[in-house]
Amino acid sequence: MDLKSLVLTQLSPLVELYKHFHSNPELSGQENNTSRVLGDQLETCGIKVVRNIGGLGIVGILENGEGPTIMIRADMDALPIIENSEADYASSVTVQDSSGNSVGVMHACGHDLHMTALVGTAKTLSKLKENWSGKVLFVGQPAEEPMSGAKAMIEDGLFKRFGRPDYCIATHVYPKLHAGSIAVKPGPIMAGVFQLKIVVRGVGGHGAFPHETRDPVVLAARIISSLQTIVSRELSPLSPAVVTVGSIHGGTRANIIPEEVVMELTSRFFDAESRNRIMNAIKRICRNEALAMNVPENLLPIITLKDGDELPATINDANLYAIVKDAVIEHLGADHFVESAMVMGSEDFALYRNSDGVEIPSCLFFTGATSHSDMELFETESIDPPSIHNSKFLPPPEETIATAVTTLAATALKLLDLHK
Amino acid sequence: MDLKSLVLTQLSPLVELYKHFHSNPELSGQENNTSRVLGDQLETCGIKVVRNIGGLGIVGILENGEGPTIMIRADMDALPIIENSEADYASSVTVQDSSGNSVGVMHACGHDLHMTALVGTAKTLSKLKENWSGKVLFVGQPAEEPMSGAKAMIEDGLFKRFGRPDYCIATHVYPKLHAGSIAVKPGPIMAGVFQLKIVVRGVGGHGAFPHETRDPVVLAARIISSLQTIVSRELSPLSPAVVTVGSIHGGTRANIIPEEVVMELTSRFFDAESRNRIMNAIKRICRNEALAMNVPENLLPIITLKDGDELPATINDANLYAIVKDAVIEHLGADHFVESAMVMGSEDFALYRNSDGVEIPSCLFFTGATSHSDMELFETESIDPPSIHNSKFLPPPEETIATAVTTLAATALKLLDLHK
Amino acid sequence: MDLKSLVLTQLSPLVELYKHFHSNPELSGQENNTSRVLGDQLETCGIKVVRNIGGLGIVGILENGEGPTIMIRADMDALPIIENSEADYASSVTVQDSSGNSVGVMHACGHDLHMTALVGTAKTLSKLKENWSGKVLFVGQPAEEPMSGAKAMIEDGLFKRFGRPDYCIATHVYPKLHAGSIAVKPGPIMAGVFQLKIVVRGVGGHGAFPHETRDPVVLAARIISSLQTIVSRELSPLSPAVVTVGSIHGGTRANIIPEEVVMELTSRFFDAESRNRIMNAIKRICRNEALAMNVPENLLPIITLKDGDELPATINDANLYAIVKDAVIEHLGADHFVESAMVMGSEDFALYRNSDGVEIPSCLFFTGATSHSDMELFETESIDPPSIHNSKFLPPPEETIATAVTTLAATALKLLDLHK
Amino acid sequence: MDLKSLVLTQLSPLVELYKHFHSNPELSGQENNTSRVLGDQLETCGIKVVRNIGGLGIVGILENGEGPTIMIRADMDALPIIENSEADYASSVTVQDSSGNSVGVMHACGHDLHMTALVGTAKTLSKLKENWSGKVLFVGQPAEEPMSGAKAMIEDGLFKRFGRPDYCIATHVYPKLHAGSIAVKPGPIMAGVFQLKIVVRGVGGHGAFPHETRDPVVLAARIISSLQTIVSRELSPLSPAVVTVGSIHGGTRANIIPEEVVMELTSRFFDAESRNRIMNAIKRICRNEALAMNVPENLLPIITLKDGDELPATINDANLYAIVKDAVIEHLGADHFVESAMVMGSEDFALYRNSDGVEIPSCLFFTGATSHSDMELFETESIDPPSIHNSKFLPPPEETIATAVTTLAATALKLLDLHK
Repeated sequence: MDLKSLVLTQLSPLVELYKHFHSNPELSGQENNTSRVLGDQLETCGIKVVRNIGGLGIVGILENGEGPTIMIRADMDALPIIENSEADYASSVTVQDSSGNSVGVMHACGHDLHMTALVGTAKTLSKLKENWSGKVLFVGQPAEEPMSGAKAMIEDGLFKRFGRPDYCIATHVYPKLHAGSIAVKPGPIMAGVFQLKIVVRGVGGHGAFPHETRDPVVLAARIISSLQTIVSRELSPLSPAVVTVGSIHGGTRANIIPEEVVMELTSRFFDAESRNRIMNAIKRICRNEALAMNVPENLLPIITLKDGDELPATINDANLYAIVKDAVIEHLGADHFVESAMVMGSEDFALYRNSDGVEIPSCLFFTGATSHSDMELFETESIDPPSIHNSKFLPPPEETIATAVTTLAATALKLLDLHK
Repeated sequence: MDLKSLVLTQLSPLVELYKHFHSNPELSGQENNTSRVLGDQLETCGIKVVRNIGGLGIVGILENGEGPTIMIRADMDALPIIENSEADYASSVTVQDSSGNSVGVMHACGHDLHMTALVGTAKTLSKLKENWSGKVLFVGQPAEEPMSGAKAMIEDGLFKRFGRPDYCIATHVYPKLHAGSIAVKPGPIMAGVFQLKIVVRGVGGHGAFPHETRDPVVLAARIISSLQTIVSRELSPLSPAVVTVGSIHGGTRANIIPEEVVMELTSRFFDAESRNRIMNAIKRICRNEALAMNVPENLLPIITLKDGDELPATINDANLYAIVKDAVIEHLGADHFVESAMVMGSEDFALYRNSDGVEIPSCLFFTGATSHSDMELFETESIDPPSIHNSKFLPPPEETIATAVTTLAATALKLLDLHK
Repeated sequence: MDLKSLVLTQLSPLVELYKHFHSNPELSGQENNTSRVLGDQLETCGIKVVRNIGGLGIVGILENGEGPTIMIRADMDALPIIENSEADYASSVTVQDSSGNSVGVMHACGHDLHMTALVGTAKTLSKLKENWSGKVLFVGQPAEEPMSGAKAMIEDGLFKRFGRPDYCIATHVYPKLHAGSIAVKPGPIMAGVFQLKIVVRGVGGHGAFPHETRDPVVLAARIISSLQTIVSRELSPLSPAVVTVGSIHGGTRANIIPEEVVMELTSRFFDAESRNRIMNAIKRICRNEALAMNVPENLLPIITLKDGDELPATINDANLYAIVKDAVIEHLGADHFVESAMVMGSEDFALYRNSDGVEIPSCLFFTGATSHSDMELFETESIDPPSIHNSKFLPPPEETIATAVTTLAATALKLLDLHK
Repeated sequence: MDLKSLVLTQLSPLVELYKHFHSNPELSGQENNTSRVLGDQLETCGIKVVRNIGGLGIVGILENGEGPTIMIRADMDALPIIENSEADYASSVTVQDSSGNSVGVMHACGHDLHMTALVGTAKTLSKLKENWSGKVLFVGQPAEEPMSGAKAMIEDGLFKRFGRPDYCIATHVYPKLHAGSIAVKPGPIMAGVFQLKIVVRGVGGHGAFPHETRDPVVLAARIISSLQTIVSRELSPLSPAVVTVGSIHGGTRANIIPEEVVMELTSRFFDAESRNRIMNAIKRICRNEALAMNVPENLLPIITLKDGDELPATINDANLYAIVKDAVIEHLGADHFVESAMVMGSEDFALYRNSDGVEIPSCLFFTGATSHSDMELFETESIDPPSIHNSKFLPPPEETIATAVTTLAATALKLLDLHK
């Protein structure tokens, strides 16, 4: 029996598992039940599971003789969004936030599907144990959304305790791609990111006496305008990048010039050189625009990069890319393979590749998540399908799970030592 | 006995009254005790008092035969400031604000002194009743700070119920002027003002996909920069004016481009043409900068001028100015007269002059409020004396009150019909 | 006979002289015939004339016993403008400029009238020699327009060779004022000025590779925008000032980012503090905006203030102002006196007051230069009369000359020692 | 004998021809001798040549039985640059420009090599005539640099007179690539471009009276700043694009605000949607920034796109790309193939693909143009090799010519009908 057929025989309980995850979402860092269920599921495949790695992270270890070590990662957390899909398994979960307000919780980023695919891959590889040798680490990672889960698992000794993998693979659902298809590219596939807090300081005073102040509102405006030239003038047009000021807050009344204006900024990029150019340019612009407005040295803008507010780009190893591509063409057919574009979103999967001085060949591929019929409908109406993080996001379970499991398993098998 | 001597004989109880007002400040619209005490004081001078005009406003009517009607106005409200002066009569009053927080209250704008001078003038004019004929209206106005008290009193029929004055006069303390001196100028003396709320709207979205949004943060920055050219390019360099954005608020997170940014703006000017130029330019800039950033017509900035958020400039009648000047030179001496500059602050006293289609000749003069010894001290240290609205503002009572009363009374006497 | 009547008896030849000057204008530094005629005219009044002071400048010395020294100054140069007035004595003079092009020459700034008034005053004071004692210096100054003539005469020993005056007076025609009237104010009356050349340097390159350059076009734009905040934020709203970039030149082709952009800037102000604030702010903004755009230290903007490209404000001595005002009221009537506003134009007359460490009391007053009938016409059409430097500027000679001569002579007589 | 060996046997005269072209460069539109020599060379291969197509363009027609029509294009013009290379065949040609000044002429863009490769390919395909059937058009195009030559040839009936090709191919030298290697990619490979003239109009006046003007210098600055947001905010970060203002000119003196400022702008992009977004944004920004500065409707900026100042992106057909890649791998070896990045430069080769409603599959590939030894040297010094348009640009003739000819001929053979 070929691999895809084998996957299809297991599909029904996987779809049930997916619906369970979807109906029972948990926010980042609170994946108690999710983590427990995922671990239990791996154990039913005869896999040894270690829990509470870097918080609620789990690791399933499938050791099967000599051979390479492969890590397959799924993320587990959901988002504070009220689900608005039409599924009968839609989430109705709500929790209280820190202010005591009720917020909805939803798997709007497909992590439910990623976990299901992890279990499906575990089942498949277990079933085929006689055909391969090596070691597979099945990682259930918490807290992907706040960019902290991968970091926590690595710092908690993931690679030291379970063995440094020779390869890391993962998938992410992708609504702009037909369900049944896989998209991947070599090199950079998802953007790096950093987020800054910038406190623009001035000297406050009465709004009718601007000459006795250093107006931080005008200074903030000047900085925001100048930041535009980082992308428009300082970076190569061929280096995709973004610098966005997402929030700005200063002052209390029309007629009082405030002491400071606080801004929060996000940047996206695909390589370390661009990242450094952007970071240096932001610092340079903030400093010199403040000096241009006669702000004294002791009141120059304060720029803070909080710990954890940075990720590198997700870079796919060229050989792993080729292997994934071959796996797709072989098992799903060439018309189910799409050469991916780069995506401006970010993933903390990027951190596994960069955890120590030596890079681990890694590959993240996209699994199509919109059915053909829905896609046609959206195209007819000239609108995009609901994106991830949208309250209506709802992939078709069967086809999406089967495609993800087949590709993950086939890729793993190509990486492990095979017994013919 | 000359006028100043007469004033000095009455000074002691006036100083006590001043200290009472200073120790018992009340916020705008809450001047219950202040208003009561002020009315009672006027009644002790044999003046008929009508209360609760436009809220807590009071009017003392001193009718004394045929002749012109003169209005003398004092404002009554204090500020939400914790007093930090060294006076033994410093305020220790606190009240709860709308959020339940405790805030200090302080007469940091000299309204206590203005009320005391009003009483002193009433006493003086009462005592000299045989020397003049006409009518004097002693007005205690609430809520000057929020620019609403004069409006409320006029709308409550001030001039219809008590007679339209032929002249309006008032004084304001002025810390940069020596106590004992008076400063005044003909024409514009204090600025007009309006305050706007500007909601800059865009289309929000993910910070990594700016091209799918209309970024209101960048638009707000562009508007703020362009607003600078109103003063630098659009107004005559000889028309003093200010456009200040005092507050700006938009967005919640670094990586989400918000739907809107809210700004509050104050403007100062000295004539209607400048006011209109500024207002039109603000509207024009907001609209066209939004269009320049591709904001659709239905999301152009919303600009709101709330009722009461506007005052014209305070314009001194040239003849009244000359009369005040003569009064000062005659009763205080030429070396106690200063030709005033214009001041960028605003006063709702301006509204009395403009209450109906025909202007009432009006004059506001400044009463020096820093003692000679303090002034020398500040000059030695090259610093300005504490300004009004400063928690350390503390005029020397005796000299300030005597100077204000003498000037108010002498001016009134020059305007009334005199019996020699 | 009163002074004005005496002036009127001399008016006819003065009008002829005026028309001669008007028909024979000479550009700055080329006032050969003008200077000769003016000197000859002074000599016909019995005044000793010394020529070629600071170029083509002349000084007439009328010594008449003990007493104060008064300097009266007229400027002599015309402008490169083709006259477009309807006068039968309109200029048809043309000269070749440095490029060999023909340019018209016109007395569009009223210097012809100033010279005529100087001669009229000389005649009057000569005639009245028995009534006064002291010394009067009649100065014909070249090259006022390029701001170089006063400087040249002072540096050529004007005050050392002919005696330091106790007072300096001058007049300037003023089209917005009715002919027959005089306007003057104490303190600052005409603005100070400096003019800068700013070379904004970057690193040029291909227009498609901005990241390999430092784009001086974008930098120049940023500097121009930031310069607006000098007036809008850094100077007191009560300190009239202007910062204008009048020319900007850089680059040769659409697709080549140039190495530099050259700008020329003028600034106006009324006191040294403002001047210094503006100058420092320009330097600060240019430097720090360049640093904000990553321009290296060795390519920061070069800011040049050429020798002679600066004048202080014209400040009228308060006592001299009062004397001029008295003279006008006495000889022309109170309804011919106007309290002047400040004017943003500049005058190198300002330099005489400031030529050494000790200020010479000086006063420049404006002589009305539009007839009543013309003024009515312009008001009907809601337009301003032709301003100075306009090709249609044409004051009514008789009234303008008579008014200027009467005021200059009466002022001089009040300053000299009179024999009653 | 394999193809590469065959090419090498012909190399010596090709190198001589290259050096002849290099030593005798002619400017755009003046390629008289170049065109003649190129045509003669094609004729010596037994190819029929038609001359003076679209000016000095030539077409060599090699008809060889039934089969597809392939067009191979080389450009012929040189640049106004004084050559500064060390070659003994360096150009010392100078010509007079329109102002009568002497300018150097240099083949600094490799067109000499492109022509040589065209001749080499013609020779090779002629020699192999028995192996294939079909038709090959060898096009020598004038005036590539001013973007006008391809347009002129098409408009002169290139495809109507000589047959519409089934495929168009061309090569361009590429200094950042090792000689001996070929780089190519499917889809967009070189940018589209348009160039605009923008006349920013205002209302001029005296620099001291900005309020009586509409300052076009400040407006131009504002427009330049706002143009930055087209790339930073309006286009997808994944759509490489450039908007550059390369020249700005306005005003004559510091103290005169001019009537207008003239700017020239270039833009680069890779697809029609981006092109339209950019063009619309430029128009929108210019219009609305002018309105924001109160410029009247009849003085809004004038934006001119001159005929010929626009090219689409160069888009490589995916199949042709695969064929070129196969040709390189087969004849030069896989290590001589490089997957190209996109390049921000533009080429009027793009026009052949888009000449009528139906696209012609086209492919432009890059031929490495820096020797291995030079490349090592430059890498040691961390500098780039001299780029095209640099006065020191000098490819190694033998290896560059052989590589280009082999790839062109091998690609052509794969496209023609082969007889085995």
